[in-house]
Amino acid sequence: MTITSHNAVTRGRFICLEGIEGVGKSTHLNTVIAHLQARGITAVSTREPGGTVLGEAIRTLLLSQDFPPMHGDTELLLMFAARAEHLQRVILPHLAAGTWVVSDRFTDATYAYQGGGRGIAQTRITQLENWVQGTLRPDLTIVLDTQVSTGLSRAGKRGDSDRFEQETLEFFQRVSAAYQQRVAQDPARYLVVDASGTLDQVRHDLLTTLDAHPVLQEYTGSCPP
Amino acid sequence: MTITSHNAVTRGRFICLEGIEGVGKSTHLNTVIAHLQARGITAVSTREPGGTVLGEAIRTLLLSQDFPPMHGDTELLLMFAARAEHLQRVILPHLAAGTWVVSDRFTDATYAYQGGGRGIAQTRITQLENWVQGTLRPDLTIVLDTQVSTGLSRAGKRGDSDRFEQETLEFFQRVSAAYQQRVAQDPARYLVVDASGTLDQVRHDLLTTLDAHPVLQEYTGSCPP
Repeated sequence: MTITSHNAVTRGRFICLEGIEGVGKSTHLNTVIAHLQARGITAVSTREPGGTVLGEAIRTLLLSQDFPPMHGDTELLLMFAARAEHLQRVILPHLAAGTWVVSDRFTDATYAYQGGGRGIAQTRITQLENWVQGTLRPDLTIVLDTQVSTGLSRAGKRGDSDRFEQETLEFFQRVSAAYQQRVAQDPARYLVVDASGTLDQVRHDLLTTLDAHPVLQEYTGSCPP
Repeated sequence: MTITSHNAVTRGRFICLEGIEGVGKSTHLNTVIAHLQARGITAVSTREPGGTVLGEAIRTLLLSQDFPPMHGDTELLLMFAARAEHLQRVILPHLAAGTWVVSDRFTDATYAYQGGGRGIAQTRITQLENWVQGTLRPDLTIVLDTQVSTGLSRAGKRGDSDRFEQETLEFFQRVSAAYQQRVAQDPARYLVVDASGTLDQVRHDLLTTLDAHPVLQEYTGSCPP
């Protein structure tokens, strides 16, 4: 999928935040947005599954515990249905207009949760990824990393759990391992941030490494292009 | 997708009814079910999109006019999400148990509506068909055929139209042409029945040609296997 610019607008950058439950994605999404905006970058935040009115309705089906357990194929197709709408209606138009998009989860989460967690073959996920996204991939994916037990302990304090949050410790350990495997396969696209410390510590580490990353360096011109 | 039988049960047959709006699919679905049951065949009726609790919820999203217009990719993935659940939870278990399944629409409708109607490339539909169904295809697809104007006139008498029923005449002409193209590509799998006459005429033609079709002949033993 090629992003073409008809009026010499520089294409926006696509940044995703990933990690297991309780790792602080929502909080640090706001941190990243504020940081980009402070540098004069127009940036919007969004999330998956969701990001559109229809996508949020699909999210409700995905997280609901009111249905008989859905088949893994169904879950995967619903995830990509919400993603197709999100991509075509929100992400691509923003990027084409020069706006940076920062998303709470994207396809790495599918590899982690449906692949690692549910055991769906990576090749099957890749087929749908190519079908929906063409060649589009995030410019940068920030993985907030912590012990599974720490994340779940934090997430548990939030109250009622959804269909994913009520999964077992072993499920989330497989999810976490799948994230690590994704990073190992293509380290240049990922930024792994230790999320086990306090919010301030994580915020400091995140912004320091983000500022040093080529995606931001290229924009601010601190490095040769 | 191979259906294996562990207790020597003969696999059920999978029959689908197709055609544009107002062609009488729902009525003649009941005709077919009653006809099979009168021959001692255990048969269940179902429909797409839908056929499961979750699938019906996805159907509601697909037919709703409450959302901004969804992208064609999204519509296609939602159709196949409902289909995956229907296949894994209803169709395959019934077939494996020896029950015949008669469905009001299946993947031919996707080729007709999303392919012919919306203009999505057939190759993209085939990729999802293979992903979801493996090698499973209906044993027989009955296409109820009539002039588009006749079908729409009948459908129009039902009252409020859904997101598909409010499409243009040209849309349904493309849908109808796509059905004809499907039949031409693999005539052995299809039974085309003229649905322009009265209900009794169509019923008579449908059952006469169905009785003569190999799918039923093999079962009733009128022909060598």
